[in-house]
Amino acid sequence: MSSQAEAYASNNSAYVGSFDKGELSLPPSKKVIVVTCMDARIEPAGQLGIDLGEAHVIRNAGGSAKEALRSIIISQRLLGTREVAVYHHTDCGMLTFTTEQLRGIVRDASPGNEAVASAVNQIDFLEISNLEESVKDDVTFLKQNPLVLPESKITGWTYDVRSGKVAQVV
Amino acid sequence: MSSQAEAYASNNSAYVGSFDKGELSLPPSKKVIVVTCMDARIEPAGQLGIDLGEAHVIRNAGGSAKEALRSIIISQRLLGTREVAVYHHTDCGMLTFTTEQLRGIVRDASPGNEAVASAVNQIDFLEISNLEESVKDDVTFLKQNPLVLPESKITGWTYDVRSGKVAQVV
Repeated sequence: MSSQAEAYASNNSAYVGSFDKGELSLPPSKKVIVVTCMDARIEPAGQLGIDLGEAHVIRNAGGSAKEALRSIIISQRLLGTREVAVYHHTDCGMLTFTTEQLRGIVRDASPGNEAVASAVNQIDFLEISNLEESVKDDVTFLKQNPLVLPESKITGWTYDVRSGKVAQVV
Repeated sequence: MSSQAEAYASNNSAYVGSFDKGELSLPPSKKVIVVTCMDARIEPAGQLGIDLGEAHVIRNAGGSAKEALRSIIISQRLLGTREVAVYHHTDCGMLTFTTEQLRGIVRDASPGNEAVASAVNQIDFLEISNLEESVKDDVTFLKQNPLVLPESKITGWTYDVRSGKVAQVV
């Protein structure tokens, strides 16, 4: 196998053999959006007991609700979801650097490259400095945003990568 | 239960009881990033055979590599990944509307609300018009982006929500 994606294609062949969910419809049956981190130790379906077809799952570095806004609007306005649950987690990489530090790392890797410097200097990497505060901030962001439906139920949670346990923050 | 998130917390208690992966490290062991859609019928771990700790998984409406760029830079520069696999899927909601149409839906739901109109008019919803072309476009975007490491292995795939099967596009 020349790539992990090819290994995944091989794994997928086994999945197809027992697949029986082809009639699920597009709108999430539980009308819920899960926002969480891209972290490799996160696996929302197993960790939260999400069945196929139930929930939109948005994942990015840190589980940023700000970056998720585009997807949340689409989910609520076109596909009927009315609940958002935000999960950040312990030992998150986003706690370990600042935007200015990462911009420096990227610039230093391509010395004299103005295209790289100009592009990276425009990116806000959305780092966090405190796990629980970051959850509260994201929930507040969503509750106050004029593009998020006011009738939305919005909660915020932490996930502990050592114990596998979730805990509600807000 | 007053919310789906509370049901997930209850489900999580069972997960914790058999959890034995608390020693996994932060960097993805397979050095791979999976980019895919938030769609409720997508479940990357099961469908691709991704084990916990192996891969960063980025999900948003459509599986947009453009929106994933911030996360990809963090993943590559700070956590050592060197492969990106982009998956878009059949029957995607992003094939069914345009940014201008969705802006109109949001504006019409809050008539006379200038804050809503101003905010939504700034959002590019990143809709797609052709499934396979959208995969090729995202792979090209990543291959040409100066902030994505040139040594990255980047592939593009479709996932068929009726059959459960993946197919390589590029």
